[in-house]
Formats: sequence, C-alpha cells, structure tokens
Amino acid sequence: MALWGGRFAEDANKDVALFTESVSYDKRLYKYDIKGSKVHSAMLASCGIIPESTAKKIAVELDRIEKRIDSGDFTFTAELEDIHMHIESALIDALGDEGARVHTARSRNDQVNLDVRLYLRDEITSIIDGINDLMRALVDAADRHFGIILPGFTHLQHAQPVLFSHHLLAYVEMFARDAERLTDCRKRMNMLPLGAGALAGTTLPVNREYVCEKLGFDYVSRNSMDTVADRDFMCELLGGLSIFCMHVSRISEDIILWSSQEFGFIELGDAFCTGSSLMPQKKNPDIAEIARGKTGRVYGDLVAMLTLCKGLPLTYNRDLQEDKEPVFDAVDTVRMLLKVFPPMIATMSVNRDNMLASASDPALMATDVAEKLVELGVPFRHAHHRVGAFVKWCREHNCELNAVTLEEMQETIPEATEEFLNLFSPEDSVKRREITGATGPKNVSMQIDFWKKKLS
Amino acid sequence: MALWGGRFAEDANKDVALFTESVSYDKRLYKYDIKGSKVHSAMLASCGIIPESTAKKIAVELDRIEKRIDSGDFTFTAELEDIHMHIESALIDALGDEGARVHTARSRNDQVNLDVRLYLRDEITSIIDGINDLMRALVDAADRHFGIILPGFTHLQHAQPVLFSHHLLAYVEMFARDAERLTDCRKRMNMLPLGAGALAGTTLPVNREYVCEKLGFDYVSRNSMDTVADRDFMCELLGGLSIFCMHVSRISEDIILWSSQEFGFIELGDAFCTGSSLMPQKKNPDIAEIARGKTGRVYGDLVAMLTLCKGLPLTYNRDLQEDKEPVFDAVDTVRMLLKVFPPMIATMSVNRDNMLASASDPALMATDVAEKLVELGVPFRHAHHRVGAFVKWCREHNCELNAVTLEEMQETIPEATEEFLNLFSPEDSVKRREITGATGPKNVSMQIDFWKKKLS
Amino acid sequence: MALWGGRFAEDANKDVALFTESVSYDKRLYKYDIKGSKVHSAMLASCGIIPESTAKKIAVELDRIEKRIDSGDFTFTAELEDIHMHIESALIDALGDEGARVHTARSRNDQVNLDVRLYLRDEITSIIDGINDLMRALVDAADRHFGIILPGFTHLQHAQPVLFSHHLLAYVEMFARDAERLTDCRKRMNMLPLGAGALAGTTLPVNREYVCEKLGFDYVSRNSMDTVADRDFMCELLGGLSIFCMHVSRISEDIILWSSQEFGFIELGDAFCTGSSLMPQKKNPDIAEIARGKTGRVYGDLVAMLTLCKGLPLTYNRDLQEDKEPVFDAVDTVRMLLKVFPPMIATMSVNRDNMLASASDPALMATDVAEKLVELGVPFRHAHHRVGAFVKWCREHNCELNAVTLEEMQETIPEATEEFLNLFSPEDSVKRREITGATGPKNVSMQIDFWKKKLS
Amino acid sequence: MALWGGRFAEDANKDVALFTESVSYDKRLYKYDIKGSKVHSAMLASCGIIPESTAKKIAVELDRIEKRIDSGDFTFTAELEDIHMHIESALIDALGDEGARVHTARSRNDQVNLDVRLYLRDEITSIIDGINDLMRALVDAADRHFGIILPGFTHLQHAQPVLFSHHLLAYVEMFARDAERLTDCRKRMNMLPLGAGALAGTTLPVNREYVCEKLGFDYVSRNSMDTVADRDFMCELLGGLSIFCMHVSRISEDIILWSSQEFGFIELGDAFCTGSSLMPQKKNPDIAEIARGKTGRVYGDLVAMLTLCKGLPLTYNRDLQEDKEPVFDAVDTVRMLLKVFPPMIATMSVNRDNMLASASDPALMATDVAEKLVELGVPFRHAHHRVGAFVKWCREHNCELNAVTLEEMQETIPEATEEFLNLFSPEDSVKRREITGATGPKNVSMQIDFWKKKLS
Repeated sequence: MALWGGRFAEDANKDVALFTESVSYDKRLYKYDIKGSKVHSAMLASCGIIPESTAKKIAVELDRIEKRIDSGDFTFTAELEDIHMHIESALIDALGDEGARVHTARSRNDQVNLDVRLYLRDEITSIIDGINDLMRALVDAADRHFGIILPGFTHLQHAQPVLFSHHLLAYVEMFARDAERLTDCRKRMNMLPLGAGALAGTTLPVNREYVCEKLGFDYVSRNSMDTVADRDFMCELLGGLSIFCMHVSRISEDIILWSSQEFGFIELGDAFCTGSSLMPQKKNPDIAEIARGKTGRVYGDLVAMLTLCKGLPLTYNRDLQEDKEPVFDAVDTVRMLLKVFPPMIATMSVNRDNMLASASDPALMATDVAEKLVELGVPFRHAHHRVGAFVKWCREHNCELNAVTLEEMQETIPEATEEFLNLFSPEDSVKRREITGATGPKNVSMQIDFWKKKLS
Repeated sequence: MALWGGRFAEDANKDVALFTESVSYDKRLYKYDIKGSKVHSAMLASCGIIPESTAKKIAVELDRIEKRIDSGDFTFTAELEDIHMHIESALIDALGDEGARVHTARSRNDQVNLDVRLYLRDEITSIIDGINDLMRALVDAADRHFGIILPGFTHLQHAQPVLFSHHLLAYVEMFARDAERLTDCRKRMNMLPLGAGALAGTTLPVNREYVCEKLGFDYVSRNSMDTVADRDFMCELLGGLSIFCMHVSRISEDIILWSSQEFGFIELGDAFCTGSSLMPQKKNPDIAEIARGKTGRVYGDLVAMLTLCKGLPLTYNRDLQEDKEPVFDAVDTVRMLLKVFPPMIATMSVNRDNMLASASDPALMATDVAEKLVELGVPFRHAHHRVGAFVKWCREHNCELNAVTLEEMQETIPEATEEFLNLFSPEDSVKRREITGATGPKNVSMQIDFWKKKLS
Repeated sequence: MALWGGRFAEDANKDVALFTESVSYDKRLYKYDIKGSKVHSAMLASCGIIPESTAKKIAVELDRIEKRIDSGDFTFTAELEDIHMHIESALIDALGDEGARVHTARSRNDQVNLDVRLYLRDEITSIIDGINDLMRALVDAADRHFGIILPGFTHLQHAQPVLFSHHLLAYVEMFARDAERLTDCRKRMNMLPLGAGALAGTTLPVNREYVCEKLGFDYVSRNSMDTVADRDFMCELLGGLSIFCMHVSRISEDIILWSSQEFGFIELGDAFCTGSSLMPQKKNPDIAEIARGKTGRVYGDLVAMLTLCKGLPLTYNRDLQEDKEPVFDAVDTVRMLLKVFPPMIATMSVNRDNMLASASDPALMATDVAEKLVELGVPFRHAHHRVGAFVKWCREHNCELNAVTLEEMQETIPEATEEFLNLFSPEDSVKRREITGATGPKNVSMQIDFWKKKLS
Repeated sequence: MALWGGRFAEDANKDVALFTESVSYDKRLYKYDIKGSKVHSAMLASCGIIPESTAKKIAVELDRIEKRIDSGDFTFTAELEDIHMHIESALIDALGDEGARVHTARSRNDQVNLDVRLYLRDEITSIIDGINDLMRALVDAADRHFGIILPGFTHLQHAQPVLFSHHLLAYVEMFARDAERLTDCRKRMNMLPLGAGALAGTTLPVNREYVCEKLGFDYVSRNSMDTVADRDFMCELLGGLSIFCMHVSRISEDIILWSSQEFGFIELGDAFCTGSSLMPQKKNPDIAEIARGKTGRVYGDLVAMLTLCKGLPLTYNRDLQEDKEPVFDAVDTVRMLLKVFPPMIATMSVNRDNMLASASDPALMATDVAEKLVELGVPFRHAHHRVGAFVKWCREHNCELNAVTLEEMQETIPEATEEFLNLFSPEDSVKRREITGATGPKNVSMQIDFWKKKLS
C-alpha cells in the first residue's frame, strides 16, 4: 500500500505501477531531495512544528541514506513510485514515528519542484563550465593557427578570404551567448518553491524565508498555485540548450566539410574518428556527425516539454511528471558533447596549403576591386556592376581574374590602373579589413587576447 | 582495437567510446541481428562464398549466443560499439577464422537497416494487436453502457444529447484509422535492405532474392545508395504513432473531465488511480494524465527524427545512429499505453444520472426545434434565428426552454405548436437521429455489432 | 536584370523569381531599412567615403520613399527580390549616381540583420507593453472579485479551497516571467551588426561605433562571420513567445472549463463569444479556444526556425531567408492575442455561488484535518493515513466528511475532538493559509497591491 | 449581426472579429464549398426536405457566386467570419427565403470538413503529379549522364565509386515512396463527412449515400462525433509532406556541396542561381538553399497541427480552425518546390572530369581488395584488417594505394598477387557491382528503363 493510500480500497495494478513510477529516472535527484529534506526538517523544528531532536535524527539518517544510495546499497522499486517516497519510506523504516514527521507541511508538488531547481542549478553551472572549456579550446586553436587563411563562405561558395582564427572565433561568440543565456535562465530559476504545498500553502506556521536562505535561493515564490504549476524554467533551459546544440551542429557541419577529401582542410586525431566495418580505408568524423544528429534529439526534448505543458489547467497535473526525462536527456546530451568536443578540437591538424590554395582563387578578391573603385569615386553599385562584367568576361575567356592584362581589365573596368592587377593576394585582402569585428590580423589578434583574458 | 581498426594508429579516446557507442540501446536488436546473420551466412554458403560447414557452425554458434544474451550471460562493453560488433566478436571468439567469415559482403550500414526493419515489423504487429485490444475494451464499454445518454459537446459547451456508446465508438474509429495507417507503414517497410553493402553493393556474387524470401520480405531494395540512407520507415512510423498518441491525449482529456467533481460522469477503479502525498482525500486519474503528457514525448521523438535526417547528404552519415532512441522510445511508450488503457477502460463505472441530468438541459434540444420548423417549411436560417431569439428570451426571463407556455414560445417562434413543447426530452432527441453515422440507438447498436464482428 | 547581375548571362526564371523573392513579407521592414540607410549614409559621409551632399540627398529621398510606402504609392515586384533592393532601386531611380552610392561598404547580409534587429527591438517593446496590459486586466479582476472562493485543482480534482484572486494572480506571475524573459532577449539582441559586410568586414574606412550610437545599440558586434550567420536572437525570441503562448493556452483551458455548463463558474461577454451555424442555443468561448490553438502555431514557428538553422555551415546561407516568416507570424499572433485577451478578461462575470458550492465539498478540507492532527503531535504521515481512512469510511457509509458524529470520526481518527467537526468551512480553510505565497486573504491582498504598484 | 446571432445581445468586438475570422485564408476553399452546397441542396430536394425548384435556383446562383469570386467581383469581410458564411450570405442576398434553405441539416462543422477533404484530394493529386515530374527530371538526368562516375560518400568521406546515375536514382526511390505515401493518405481521406451535423447527425431524413456518390467519396463516415472532431487526414498529410521535404533537403545538400568550388562537380544554370549585393563574383545555388530551409517550415506546420490537436476533448473545438493555415502553407510550399526543382535539375551541367578525379582516389577501391581476398579464401574480417594495415602503411609511407610494388603490398597483404595491383580503376570497380540494386552499369541501366516505363 502506498504511503498516500489511506483512502484506497485496492492496490495499484502492477502495470499501472510501472506506468506511473518515476523512480527509474528521478532517482538521480536523491542528493537534492535529501538536501531539501534536511533544511525543511530543521525549519520545522525551528518553528516548533516538530521537535529539535527529531530534526537532528532525520538529518543524521538522511545522511546515512545518501551514503547508501551513493554506494549502491539501496533498493529501488516501482511500487514506491518516486525518489521522494523512497527516501521518506527509508526514513520511516529507520526512525519510525520520527521519520513519519518529515513530510509535514510539504507536498510532493512543491518538493519535486525544489529538487529539480536545486539539481538544474548545479547542472547549469557545470554546463557553463563546459562551454567555457569549449571556448578555450577554440581560442587556443585560433591562437595556434594564427595567420592561416581560408576562404570565407557564403552559400557554401567562396566569398572572401578570412583568417582561420577569425572563423574559429565566430564560434566562440556563439558559445559565449549560450553561456550568457543559461546564466539568465539560472538566475530566473533560483527561487524557492517549497512551502507552496500541494497548491495553496499550508496551515502550519512554517518559515519559508529560512529555507530560502539556507538553500541559497534569491527569493521566495510569491504565488503557491503558480509555483506548483510552473515548468517555465525547464522550457527556458531546453530552449537555451537547443540553441547551443544548433551551434554545435553548425561547427560540426564545418568540421565534416573540412574533413572531406574535396576540402582537405583539416584532419582530426585518430582517437576522435572511427572506421568502417566494410571499407578498410575509412576514417570518419563520427563525433561531429553524431553531435549534429544529437541536435535533433534536444530539439525533440524541447518539443516534448512544450507540448506537455500546452493546455494544462492549473495547477499541478500528473502530465508534468513527464517533464524530467526530456530535461535530463538534454542535460546529459549537452554534457557528453562538452566532454568530447574540446579535446577533439585540440587534435585538429590544419592543412595550411589546401586552405590557402582555396583562398587564392582571385575571384575572392572581386569585392576588393569594387571597393578600390569606390575609393576612386565610382559609386558602389556601378563598381559592383563593372566587376561583375569583368568576372563574366574572364569566365567567357576561360581565364582567372588575375591572369589578364590591364587593357583586358579596362574593357569592363575603364577606371582600372596597374594597382588593380595587384589586388588578388588573399594575404593582402585580409590585411585590408581592420575595422572593428573584421578579419584583419590586428583585429583578430586583439579578439584572441580579449577571449584569453575573459576565459582565464 | 576495434574490428575495423586496421588503418588506425590510435585507439579511441575513452569518452569518445562512450559518446559513439550504441550498444546500450541497440542491444535490444540482438535476436534480429542473429536471425539476419543466420540467413546471410546460409546464403553466402549457397552461393559458394563461404563453406557450407562454416555456415552451419555459424548458425549453431549464433543460437548459442542468442541463448546467452537471453539469459543475461553476455557482457556488453562500449568498446565494441554496437550489437553487431558484439555478436561478430563473440562469434570470432568461439569459431576463430570461421566466425571471421560472417561479415562477408555486408556492411553495418545495410545490416542495421535490416535489423531495425525486422524489429519494427514485429513491434508494429504487436502494437496493432494492442490497438485492437483497446478498441475491444471501448466496444465492450459501449455495449455495456448502451442506452446511457450524455451531452455531446462542441467547444466544451453542451451541444446535443448523444449516446455514451456513440461517444466511445468515436474513439474506436480513430484507433481503427491508426491501425490502418500502421499497416500501410509496415507494408512499405517490408523491403530487404541487405546486400546494399556500405552504399554500392558488393563485388561478391551474393543472392539477395534468397535472403529476401527467407526473411519474409516483399521485395529487394532497388538502389543500394538509397537503401543505406533511408530512414523514411522510421519517420513514417513516428508520424503514425504521434497521431495515435494524439488520439490517446483526446480520450484522456475526456476521461479527466468526466472524472472531475464538476462533471461527475465516471469513476475509474482505485487500481488505476493514485493519491496525494499531502491531501488524504485525493484520487487522481493519473493514467490518463500521464498518457496525455506522453503525447508530447512521442511528438518530440518525431521531431528528433525528422530534424536529424534534415539536410544530410547521401548516403549513410553517422547522425543516423541517433535514429534508434527516438523510435525505441516511441514504441515503448505506445506499448505501455496499450497495456494500461484497456484494463482502465474496463474499470470505468458510469454515473448514469449525472450524465442524463447534464443532457436534460433543454437548450440541448434547440436544434431539434429548429429542424421541426424546417419540417413545417420554414427556411433553416430563419428557423435558426427564431430559436436563437427564443433562447435569448428564456435567458432574459430566467427560465428554461421547456418551462414556457406555448404563447410565450410563439412570441419568438410564431409557427410553434403544442408539439413543440414536447421536443425537450434527450431520449427522444437521440432517437430522432437515425441517419447513417448519427447517434440514434439503432444506428449505434448496428455500429457496436459491426465492430464486435470486425474485432473478433 | 538584378542589381547584382553583372556576372550573369541569363535572367532568373520567372518561377525562380517567385520562389526566391522575399519582398512579399519583408516589406514590413521598410521603415527600419530606411532608418538604417540614413545613418549608414551619414556615416559614410562623415568618414569621407561619399560626399556629404550625397548623404543629405539620400536622406531626403529616403524620407520621400518612406512616405510613398506609407501611403501605398509604391510598387513592389518579385523581380526586385527584397525590400533592400526595392529601396536602393528607388533611390537610384531618383538620384542616379548619388543613389548608387548608398550600398557602399555594406552587404544585404549585414543590412537585413540590422533591419530585423531594429524591427524586433520595437516589437518586443510593444509586446511587453501588451503583456503588462494583460497583467493589469488580471490584477483588476483579482481586485474586483476579491473574496470569492473556488476549489483549487490538482489533476483537475478538487484539492483545497483557494481565493479566485489567488488563482488569477498565478497567471500574473507567469506573464511577469514572460516579460522578464523578453527583456533579456531584447537586451541580448541590441548589438550593431552593420559593418560585418558579406562576412569579412570591408576594406573601406567605415566607423561602426558612429552607427552604433546613432541607432541606439549597446555595442558593436565583435566578429563579422558570426554576425552575418547569427539568428540566435530570433530563436530566443521564438522560445520566449512559445512559453508565453503556453501560458495563454493554460489560462484558456481554465476559462473554457469554467465556462462549461458543468463548472458554471464564469460567463464571458457576448462580444467575446460566437455562436453556431446549426445550434441556436450555443455561445462558445472561441477566443480562448483559438488562443489555445494558436499555441501550436507559435511552437511550429519555433521548430521551423530551429530546424532551418540546424547544420548550416558558416556563414550566411540562403536558407536563412526563411527566418522571417516564422518570426513575423509569431509576433503577429502574440500581438493579436494581447489585443483580445485583456478586454475579454474584463468582461468575465463570475458565478460566486457555483464556485463556492464546489469549494464547499468538505473533502477539500481533508488536509486541514491532517494538519490539525500534526498540531496535536501526530506525525504527518500517520495523520495523513488516518484522514485517508476517514475519507474511505465516509465513502463507504455514503456520507460527507462533515456529516459524521465525533464518535464516527474517532473510529478512524482517535485523536479527533469537537473542534475537528468545525474544520470544514472553505472560508476558514483559506484564512488558515497566510504564509508567504499562500492563498490567505491577507497575503493575496498584499500581492494585489504589489502588482498594482508594479504595473502602474 | 452574424447569421448565427439570434441568441446574442451584443455584436462581436471588432478586434474579436479580426481574431476569429478565417475568411482571409479559407476563401481558397470557395469552389469546394460551392460544389458541396450544390450536391447538398440537390440531395435535400431529392429527399423532399426542400423544394426541387429551390435546389435548382440555389445551384444556378452558386455558379454565379463562383464566377464572381473567380473574377474578383466579390467582397470579403471579417464580419462574415468564413467562406461558408460568405457564400450562404450571398445566396440569401440573391434568393431570399430560398437561399436561407441551403444550410438545412448541416453545420459548419461537417461542411468545413467536407470542403477541406475535397480541396486536399485535388491538391494531393496535383502534388503527386509534381513529384512524378521531379522523378522524370531525375531519370532524364540519370539517362543523360549515364556512365559518369563519382565517389559515393558515407560520412561525407570517399567510400566507393558509383555511377552518377545511380546516385540520382537514389532520389527517385525516395520520391517514389513519397508519392505512394500520399496516395495512401488520399485514399484514407476520401470519406464523406457531410451529414455528421454539428456532432450528432440530424433529425431530418437526409440521404448521405447520395451525396457520397455524387462527390466521388469511397464511403460515408460511420460516427458523427468522430467525423467533426477528426483532423487525422491533415496530420497524416503533413507527415507525408515533411518526409518529402526532408528528401528535398537531402538532394539540396548534395547540390550545394557539388556546386562548391572544392567539389566542383556540377554547375546550375544562371537562371536558377542568384548573385550577391556586395560580391560581384558570386553565383549561389539559392534554390537548393531555400528549399533546404523550407523543410523547417513544413516541419513547423506539422508540429503546429499536432500540437493544436493534442488534448482536445470531443468533439469540435474552435482550436481546430487553426488547422488550415499550416496545411495550406505546407501544400503551397511543396507545390512551389515542385515548380522549380524539375527545371533546375534539367539545367544542371556535370563536370565529368572533376567527378572522376575524385573517384580515382585508389583508397576507394580498398573494399574491392578485401573482397578479392575473400575470393581467395581469406575470412572477410582478416581481409579487412590486412587492407586496413595496407592503408596505414601507405599513409605512413606517404604514397597512394596503387603506387606500391607487389612486394610492398605483400608486407601487409601476404596473399596479394599481381592481379591486386590492377584493382584500382574506378570504372572496373563499378562494373564489379552488378548484383540487384548495386551500382553496376547493367543494373543501373535496367533501373533507368524501369523508371522511364513507370513514369511514362
């Protein structure tokens, strides 16, 4: 018979127990459940609701239960439904009547909300640490490979030469925003739900402010009905993790492209690749591929969460039990990604020659030519059109842009001078772009310093 | 060193092994992997590619491995990546060179595609059986509660009286479509992928038609590149399961509403409800709530799957390894739902009086009045407007529609006769609706017979 | 021939023009495009890149173009693709060579990013205003209906009595978090992208800081490649709007339930309901239903956005053109919701008697009985069990909890005293809950004041 | 005052009218609404419910209304809500009392369901035609480019050489499954909903079978409550279109990769590309990019639809009005895709030399070497390992696989013979793969013939 079973004439059907249990996945919350129960009991005692001596015994026994769970010496069973019931039940087994006092002035509705907030607070901190590691790996690579030039792409077409470091730092910017977004989310989630009871608070004279302070929350929730119904913090977290994974999918795409034989820009360490069961020559960038695939998984978690909250009346509905698996899955997924990505980035070797060869396509400097015309006073739109015509001329004459004579260039760009014939070096092109945020070496070097400092 | 590791200078990083392994979840395919390998080996022997005696030993040893896995006497390890490598490796451990012949003319790319098709074929069959059970439970309830009337709702507002059986049969229709949709999906998935190799087929003289026939597939895949890249059958299955879960969420919503104190239409068996840790009086329809919540989960699985396939170039990409968890999760979820729903429906007791009381609101018969006017030759739109005015009159006079005198009714409905005053019985209203598909008792009774026969 | 068409030998296919155009939806950005171009030209002049006189003429002509578009006197055509090309083209038509200077040191890649940021900055401000209106409507209703008691629900089952005002304020909390989340998003989006060029910056000596200040951005983007590839701010916004809509779907569900005949808790004004084409008596809470449905739409917009960004290599890819319609759709949807919800809330009349009758079910006070036992020293878990047994006893004896003698109560609750028989008033139950955040009248009244002040 | 407004004391609020109207998008159904109303009226007359002469006048006037809408000579207004009310209202304006008879025994609930089924039946037919066009374009290209070899990729790494035609036909397989899936969906949706009324049928003696036959439906719906609540056919259609778009995103990815300078495999016609506003040299494969992006849009439509149906109680709820925009959007999107893709495929020119050069990497023939060893009796797993070691040896000695002496090869592959040195031609490799479904020229040629016949 369940602890809540006083009014029930029949026990739960066995399949029902399996269908409704959550302990198989919420047991990961045990440390937080215990932490919360210890503070809760201490508060109850401090308010005279339970004896001080009881609160002390509860605290000691909870520590013992924590150690038993730590060591694997604790039996979980679907019949006891969830981690809360397991711990309360173990407490009652050990302490009898005194254990039976722990759940005073508390419902699982506010308890689980507390546990998950405590848990996610820690997880977010740890994920932000991991993101910083990843950013450091990228900044290190940007530093190590400083000076290497590759084509910048738009539409996966050669656009303009850029520093490889600049390309890597673009990802640093993305991940920095991710960390910032998660920080906002953590801040918003740092509110004490305990004391909301089932939905209406409690008639007992508890002290929520005490619990709030002891557990390091920023403030006490203001509305008990909202508190037990609220899963915003999970939705927001999943939103943030989805955007992070989207970034991971983009860097993965670049890594996969660069690793292809056609690009030949980089090679990953053997330890970060796998082979084929059939084709002996294969070495595949699996980490990046799986990471790209896992983006879908985290998006799916977000959709699961948003869907389950949709259209629920107030306050708590059991649907909300389904909140944990998507959040846990997303958190686990992101943590795994953060474990393998930084060392993988570190093993990346760069084929400087292939990158430069690709970037040396003189068509990449077409914009430089147009902007040179602007300097001579040609309106940009006309400059653009002339250089476009020049590109077309070269294509029709089957020659590269830098393989023409001045006279030939002047057929389409009358204003061209000798200087124009020397605009086709990718190194110079990069150096010409030193405005804030651009790919010029000085600017990029400054950015590397900026991030090094920030991340140290 | 992995079985495919000939060309590698370094072993995989330990975290990488954990990141890339799939055996923790694909081990559930072992029976299908073994079944496929047995037929594959027999085919290789029949084509003279490996000795007959080898094929026989492989078959015997595979059976032995299957029994070991059945009994839990088999060690799984992330280093061996997936179920295919575990079984091949165990085979080689047992048979040496002869075991090393099993993976001839085969890649994991076509092997996993085979395993999953074999597995899902069985799962779909089993899910369709479960849906039939659920339909039977609903038809039984429709039969048992025949004659009970409740209000039919649109916009969650009283619309017209209907038979409770008619309402239940509406869900039978939905689930019947689900079963049909899954049958189509199963048919489309029943194609042999093996022989596609990594992506280009094989240079060895295999006989795919032999394997096709032995494994009960309808036909051999026509294009090896498509075959190893194809996950349509998983997407389609997840689409079908999502629609099924949407239906489950709708019947769950009805059950939750009907179980509320305000409706008071039904009560579920104690064994299918749970209580509250705080509030001693609570008895909650948790199964229906969790089921409604699980809809989000399966939608999430669908989104995960579609997202991961998006934008992948041909052919196999490792992203596709992420296909299994969402599909397995959805299949497991649906199977659990199908285990608890039919018995829950069977425990449902009905409060006939409350249902009838709700359905006896005379406003529910307003359409009957309007249609009676149509019989007298009043154009429907005018009839509708007159009855609307009559409803407004009653509201303003704070009386029920059947608590007026004929003269009062004639103020807004001049054509009304004595007969009109007798149009407000829900039983008669239901009986007036005997056209095909409507809620009349003869029609519903015929539908019950139709489904009983179909489902027997 | 397109403005960028210098190198092209063929014009676009007509269907291609329709397929690739965006002006049909991005024309809504025209004011922002013009605002940006004016500041951009002024900056170009201040840096000596174009003549001061040209910048002035451009500014004047841009104002003229804005007025033409305002008044509908401007022709849009798929051939000119997008709003940027339309405005540049009109400028060139009017000013010739001088107009041809406006697009100097700028690409559509950074220009569209600028326009959308400027546009969304305004939209978010306006949405936050709308959310404040909605909160005010709820606080007003909480104030107006202060003192009314209804059952608080968990699992859509009666849980404990609560103040109707407390229930309404729960939604105020949710919407307050939404506004806060959007404020964070707005802050993060307030960064100048212009100057990133196509992806690498420009060779011309522009002054991004000038533009940043004039357009009221907080800072200049640090990495040009990230800048043109970044759509985080749209993803984050859609995430925030999805959570907002989820909240709207929950309040809508409550409104729909409360409006049902079975609940009979509220009635909405006629002007916020619609009728049926067939059933003359119907009055449906359509606004709430459509609002609940629109949640799906905004979730869909979020999924569209996340999916389209997934797996894109750096930097700009044309896929990103598909970013605008989901964002615009979500913004429009939310703004429409915010227009109709506050006045609808204002028309809501409350049926105090029905609410109180529902809340007077004595089973709702079961927790009060258990907590009274705690005050007497009974451990809560035992107290809970005793009251559960008492509930069961009452059910078996087919009587209400407050219709027993003390002796009968003592059969299951030995500690019960006379006082226990008086615990079943919902008014008293509410008053017993005055801890922070609970439903007690003092506490709720304080919350009403808190929000009034905050929202004034 | 709305046509249904008899009971209402107040008109709708103006914003409410805009919020609840659907005519701005459901007007596209007018032809189907008119078609349905004509058959409905004829049936009413044939059953003696309305006069024959009235039915005839209604039919004539409906034709007139259709022509007015065709020609743009018809005013739509939010006050009249939807297309049904517009047409009924126009009918009443023209015919007075006789027009007021058309809505007899019908509700908008079954009417809109009818209209959408009729509409989607046609759209699906047209989409399937479009898919056939696309398949024909691909088969034509496969035929035209027969014999060209490119590397087949797995993990975007060179795997084995394949015929370009084989690669193209892989997409034909995908699109063929799409067409089949849509055919199943069309078949399932071809059911008459009319006669279900609001939810319970009608008391009038209508003949649903008559309407069914005249409108070409396969059968009459069996349960009126299910009928008005059912949106499965839209969900299923969106599922099918999502899978189709996923395929489009994959072929788009290939096209984008192949068009990159690094691959240099194909070039699309100028008319199917666009340029850059800044970079004069750019020619971007925009169609393929936008198409890839539009996948997200259609996924979003699917999520919107599934979300909105989730958790709705029976029967019709106004949320369901939100069903149309996602379905219409997905249908329009797919039709646009089908307009531009076939001609774009037709313009694709192939750089045979670049493809062959890439496919000539001798590592691509590693599997051929391993399979040759199998022919000599070496167990495949050992063969694989030896060739892997050989690949590693070559890498370490910095030489290609076909640039070794026999002695060198024998260091890692002792069984190697002279013949082994000649296994590295991609043309021969392809020719060795003639099993069913493989890339061998005979097999591929047979497939081209198969599809040509099937699609003619």
